[in-house]
Amino acid sequence: MHLSWNDIAAWDRIRRLQLINSITGYKPANLIGTRSSAGIDNLAIFSSVVHLGSNPALLGMITRPDTVPRHTLSNIRDTGYYTINHVSHDIMREAHWTSADWAADQSEFEVLGIASEELDLFSAPFVRDAPVRMAMSLVEELPIKANGTILLIGKLEFVRFPDAALDADGSLNYEQLQSVAISGLDSYHSATRLSKFPYARTQNWKGLQ
Amino acid sequence: MHLSWNDIAAWDRIRRLQLINSITGYKPANLIGTRSSAGIDNLAIFSSVVHLGSNPALLGMITRPDTVPRHTLSNIRDTGYYTINHVSHDIMREAHWTSADWAADQSEFEVLGIASEELDLFSAPFVRDAPVRMAMSLVEELPIKANGTILLIGKLEFVRFPDAALDADGSLNYEQLQSVAISGLDSYHSATRLSKFPYARTQNWKGLQ
Repeated sequence: MHLSWNDIAAWDRIRRLQLINSITGYKPANLIGTRSSAGIDNLAIFSSVVHLGSNPALLGMITRPDTVPRHTLSNIRDTGYYTINHVSHDIMREAHWTSADWAADQSEFEVLGIASEELDLFSAPFVRDAPVRMAMSLVEELPIKANGTILLIGKLEFVRFPDAALDADGSLNYEQLQSVAISGLDSYHSATRLSKFPYARTQNWKGLQ
Repeated sequence: MHLSWNDIAAWDRIRRLQLINSITGYKPANLIGTRSSAGIDNLAIFSSVVHLGSNPALLGMITRPDTVPRHTLSNIRDTGYYTINHVSHDIMREAHWTSADWAADQSEFEVLGIASEELDLFSAPFVRDAPVRMAMSLVEELPIKANGTILLIGKLEFVRFPDAALDADGSLNYEQLQSVAISGLDSYHSATRLSKFPYARTQNWKGLQ
């Protein structure tokens, strides 16, 4: 099937959202935990968390502008802090439901029965049952002129995960973590490792096998 | 395990890269196809493609700066065009090897035996065997001050995928596509759909089940 942008632009809005949100490939499933200046906790699912650099450890995420209320964005702006929590099999249904339009005075933790946790006096809430939990501080907010979205850039302050999930080379073992992947707007996937390849050096290429 | 940034900063560089590159969750696996102004084709694997918006269809990707030669970045700057091609099981080994430091006058298509294809007179090469192939035009280049990386923003010009992969609601069916997910720097995963949830409306929440 060959679709030009003009073809897709003529589709109805929901169908276009479904296609373009599913076009990039598998996406990470993360819950962003924040606390408002009034002390109300918020939790929202994001599939746009992206690695920016390892020293310092910088992660980005894309948010829509605050032309309608965006609790996550306004809480991060107000406090400067947020948490990133992997979604695992066990919590994916409740995680998806954080995308509903809950009111500002409703905590998604409470209304959806997701257990929260405080760690190290950090001023944003963590998801207790998430296999990987990161404390983040806001570093930079980059407006994207082309469509008004925003790249939020944060620095990793600390991270928690099960001891058994740390492989000898420093990477996280996804078979241990039970984290899920998202495709499109609403599909959740488990994954199985097919291969772990060595660092690729031109002199080691042995041809097609 | 609890690791502060200071703990991780004390690790050796490769171990830190492994951890921080694996910390965000599953990532999409895409091959970026470009052509230099001298006519040399280039192909490079990226795990940082991210959805920015659906109307127009804008996708981002993170690239490191050109303090060392970056063929993908310089070709996109020179020509304004690139392709995004999903990595499937069948081509993941060769796809990973595009990360080796091949010379500017070597085409990864040729040296790694990856079949290329021209489509619709588009001026960047596609990966013939990729299940999803997108033609992109550069819209905006956003420098990230915090670490010198760059967010490249592109607009979807057209896309090709197998007819059977388009679900009735407009989303791509990942069980059909056989696209893979990446974790960290070097692990490739197949995935299985666990659930597709309805659009979440507060009045439809039925509680924990």
